[in-house]
Amino acid sequence: MKIHGRHYRTIWVNDDGWSVQVIDQTKLPFAFETKRLASDDDAADAIKTMVVRGAPLIGATAAYGLCMALRQDASDEALDAAYRKLHATRPTAINLKWALDEMSAAVRNRPRQERVAAAYARAAELCDQDVATNEAIGRQGLKIIEEIAARKKGSQVNILTHCNAGWLACVDWGTALAPIYMAHDKGIKLHVWADETRPRNQGGSLTAYELGAHGVPHAVIADNAGGHLMQHGRVDMCIVGTDRTTANGDVANKIGTYLKALAAKDNDVPFYVALPSSTIDWTIEDGLKEIPIEERSPREITHVMGRTAEGKVVDVELTAPGSPAANPAFDVTPARLVTGLITERGTVPASRQGLLKLFPERA
Amino acid sequence: MKIHGRHYRTIWVNDDGWSVQVIDQTKLPFAFETKRLASDDDAADAIKTMVVRGAPLIGATAAYGLCMALRQDASDEALDAAYRKLHATRPTAINLKWALDEMSAAVRNRPRQERVAAAYARAAELCDQDVATNEAIGRQGLKIIEEIAARKKGSQVNILTHCNAGWLACVDWGTALAPIYMAHDKGIKLHVWADETRPRNQGGSLTAYELGAHGVPHAVIADNAGGHLMQHGRVDMCIVGTDRTTANGDVANKIGTYLKALAAKDNDVPFYVALPSSTIDWTIEDGLKEIPIEERSPREITHVMGRTAEGKVVDVELTAPGSPAANPAFDVTPARLVTGLITERGTVPASRQGLLKLFPERA
Repeated sequence: MKIHGRHYRTIWVNDDGWSVQVIDQTKLPFAFETKRLASDDDAADAIKTMVVRGAPLIGATAAYGLCMALRQDASDEALDAAYRKLHATRPTAINLKWALDEMSAAVRNRPRQERVAAAYARAAELCDQDVATNEAIGRQGLKIIEEIAARKKGSQVNILTHCNAGWLACVDWGTALAPIYMAHDKGIKLHVWADETRPRNQGGSLTAYELGAHGVPHAVIADNAGGHLMQHGRVDMCIVGTDRTTANGDVANKIGTYLKALAAKDNDVPFYVALPSSTIDWTIEDGLKEIPIEERSPREITHVMGRTAEGKVVDVELTAPGSPAANPAFDVTPARLVTGLITERGTVPASRQGLLKLFPERA
Repeated sequence: MKIHGRHYRTIWVNDDGWSVQVIDQTKLPFAFETKRLASDDDAADAIKTMVVRGAPLIGATAAYGLCMALRQDASDEALDAAYRKLHATRPTAINLKWALDEMSAAVRNRPRQERVAAAYARAAELCDQDVATNEAIGRQGLKIIEEIAARKKGSQVNILTHCNAGWLACVDWGTALAPIYMAHDKGIKLHVWADETRPRNQGGSLTAYELGAHGVPHAVIADNAGGHLMQHGRVDMCIVGTDRTTANGDVANKIGTYLKALAAKDNDVPFYVALPSSTIDWTIEDGLKEIPIEERSPREITHVMGRTAEGKVVDVELTAPGSPAANPAFDVTPARLVTGLITERGTVPASRQGLLKLFPERA
């Protein structure tokens, strides 16, 4: 994606050949800044503090974290310690574990002196693969948008999305937003309702920032508003990302996704989830029982970052002084509420049979 | 209700005998300030800018607005003009019209020189009536909480509420919160999940402020979180207020209420709506088609007021610069999702038959 006319990915290796640069997403939408990560600790911190976020980008960052750890110490013990440290940063997203497993497999059976180079090579592959996968997801999702546009005979297609599953959540393109970018670029008239996505406002900041930069018509709405818009026929489809999808199609995603899926069902609005297959956790079935849900700091509820009229970015308290708060960061949308899973190999019903049709090697 | 040990209503006539004082709710939870209203214009502004809010309190403020207009000019023309001005302030809440109609009826057939005194007397009655009604609602709702507490054998009752339907929304007591205060005062162990209620955060500010001041255990949550909590058995009942309920039990309330009602239904959590009968619009049936939904300024989405670490209250921008926003302020929860309507006369199913059982005079 381009920012100020220059092409960016969200993560890249610096000219020194080993340290990693990322876009600091805690600074968006108020400032575009990048941040240098020079160790596995830096990578773990960047994930934990959400300098980087989004399931695919978390995986890519962890991969480079492992590279930097091996650069310090290429032993099995160091590899295991870095794996554990990076894996512990966020409990819900499965891509994190997937990326770390891919990296481990790429280096473990090699002599120590080859491990660093092998790790960097594999991390670069994972990033390129993420871009290609998302482009494929975009093409699959585009078909769905084209069908809706055809049915609406060219009148505006209204799409609701929750949180940010755009290129900022990935290495490039995005998952849920990739089809939207492609449809827009093909000249399909569309408009996006971007859920604000409290508490961290990734919709109002990151999604709106992305869509605005690309010129896609959109409006930020309170997380409360989607149901009302669907009741009044103002949403033609929902499309969201996911941090982990179970083998039977239950979808963990940013808190509040479940509420939108309920409203979509109640109003016959198709509800799609876009995901690279690395987000599927084939080891579990029941998302509600088996996916760990991260509980984040109450401070994300009681405080928010914003820009004053003078252009200063400040952290302000929103709630009554001393009010306790609770902050579960994800919820699980049962497969029965999901119209389809859009993967790099195609779109299928959210079910074991559906997924196995595309990924028969998992049967 | 008491603040710093002193009993307050949300609105009262000043010692001058005619101007009106209200708690400035735009300043809460950061400061407790009151504001003097000295004309119908002041009253209309206070309603429009949400210095006062909450269906019952809007009605009370409009009633005194009419008193102050008549004090300037007691003619029929002035009465009609003030009625129209005050009625136009907020389109969704029906108590506003109800209170204005009550006031009109109390003065219209009197000689002009008696109108001002009659108006102030009627406004005071409406306020006292609101307090008595809410106390009765509290007693009705208390029974439901007691039943749940008995079923849970004394373990904590978890109640979710959306927006603020507490004493700050009324003259005193509150509608949805009245049963909670009574249950807490009776020693029932309970805990309230207060939905933040974006965009204006009346839950995170006003409800949390009220509950904290009264000592009721609570936690503020993102509007996105309620569904997840219900999925995991962490909500025993939902109780909300309403700005207008139709003759067949459809409920207009703060945007996002519908989403919580869907989640409650999906998880077999009882979903109650507490309302004075003045909130029932007997003239309409289909809430989705017939209740006008106020669209408020996009600035309520793109900006928020908060307190800096230095204690300064500032308005900050949250979204990507230039991002458009949409801001419908209410939604309609269909009667089929409502377990019961808690009124001053009792609790009944959300249906015409249910309501007519309590209000046979409307048959």
